[in-house]
Amino acid sequence: MASIFTKIINGEIPSYKIAEDANNYAFLDIFPTAKGHALVVPKHEVDNLFDLPEDKYLDLQKFARKVAKGIEKTIPCNRVGVAVVGLDVPHAHIHLIPINKLSDISFEKEKLKFTEEEFKQIAGEISSNI
Amino acid sequence: MASIFTKIINGEIPSYKIAEDANNYAFLDIFPTAKGHALVVPKHEVDNLFDLPEDKYLDLQKFARKVAKGIEKTIPCNRVGVAVVGLDVPHAHIHLIPINKLSDISFEKEKLKFTEEEFKQIAGEISSNI
Repeated sequence: MASIFTKIINGEIPSYKIAEDANNYAFLDIFPTAKGHALVVPKHEVDNLFDLPEDKYLDLQKFARKVAKGIEKTIPCNRVGVAVVGLDVPHAHIHLIPINKLSDISFEKEKLKFTEEEFKQIAGEISSNI
Repeated sequence: MASIFTKIINGEIPSYKIAEDANNYAFLDIFPTAKGHALVVPKHEVDNLFDLPEDKYLDLQKFARKVAKGIEKTIPCNRVGVAVVGLDVPHAHIHLIPINKLSDISFEKEKLKFTEEEFKQIAGEISSNI
C-alpha cells in the first residue's frame, strides 16, 4: 500500500506544497514545531533514509539544501535545522525547521497551530524564495 | 581562531575517531544521547551546513551515509537518526544517532556516560564496520 507521503505526492491527499522536482517533494508539516517547518521526501518510497540508492540520496540532499535556503530567506531565524527520525511514517523524510533555540527542533513539545490560510501563505512565500 | 572541531580534526584535541577522508571527519560525541552517537564534520570550516559549497555539502552527505551504515551494522537499533542544530559550535556538524524511540534523539535530556575504554571500543567497532 502506498505510504501517506506517496499519497500526498500523488495529490490523493492535499498538502501545502513548497517545491517539487523529478525525484523529490517538499511541503509544510501540519504539526509544526516552528513556523516554516517543512518535510522533504523522496518520491522513491523507502523506509530508512540511508537505504535510498546513493544517487537518489544525494539528489534528495541537494533538493533539501535548496528548500532550506528558501526557508532561511523567508522565515526570520538563526538557521534551518535538520532532523531525520522516521519512527512514525515508514517513508524516509527530512524535517527542515527554522530554529532560534534548541526547543524549536524538539518533537516532544506541543505542536504549533496555524489556520489553512496561514499555512497557504507560508508555503507560498517559501516557494517563491526557492 | 580555529573551531574546536578543526582542533579535533588537526589532532590538537583528542577524539574517538571513527572515519576520515579528504574532506570530512567522524568521531563519537562525548555527550551522547545514545550509544554510538557520532558527529560528522566537514574539514571546510563554516557555521551553517547549508552555506557549504554544494560539492563539499554533497561530499559530506555521502560520507555521512557511509558512517551511518557503519553505525547501523554495529549498534542494535531501529535506525540511525539525523540532527543538525548547530546553535552551540559554529562549525557545521551532523549528529548521527542510533534510535529506538523518539527520546534517543532528544538533546534536552541528560546525556549518557561512558568510560574512555568504552568510547574507544565503540569507535573501534563502528570504524571496522565502515
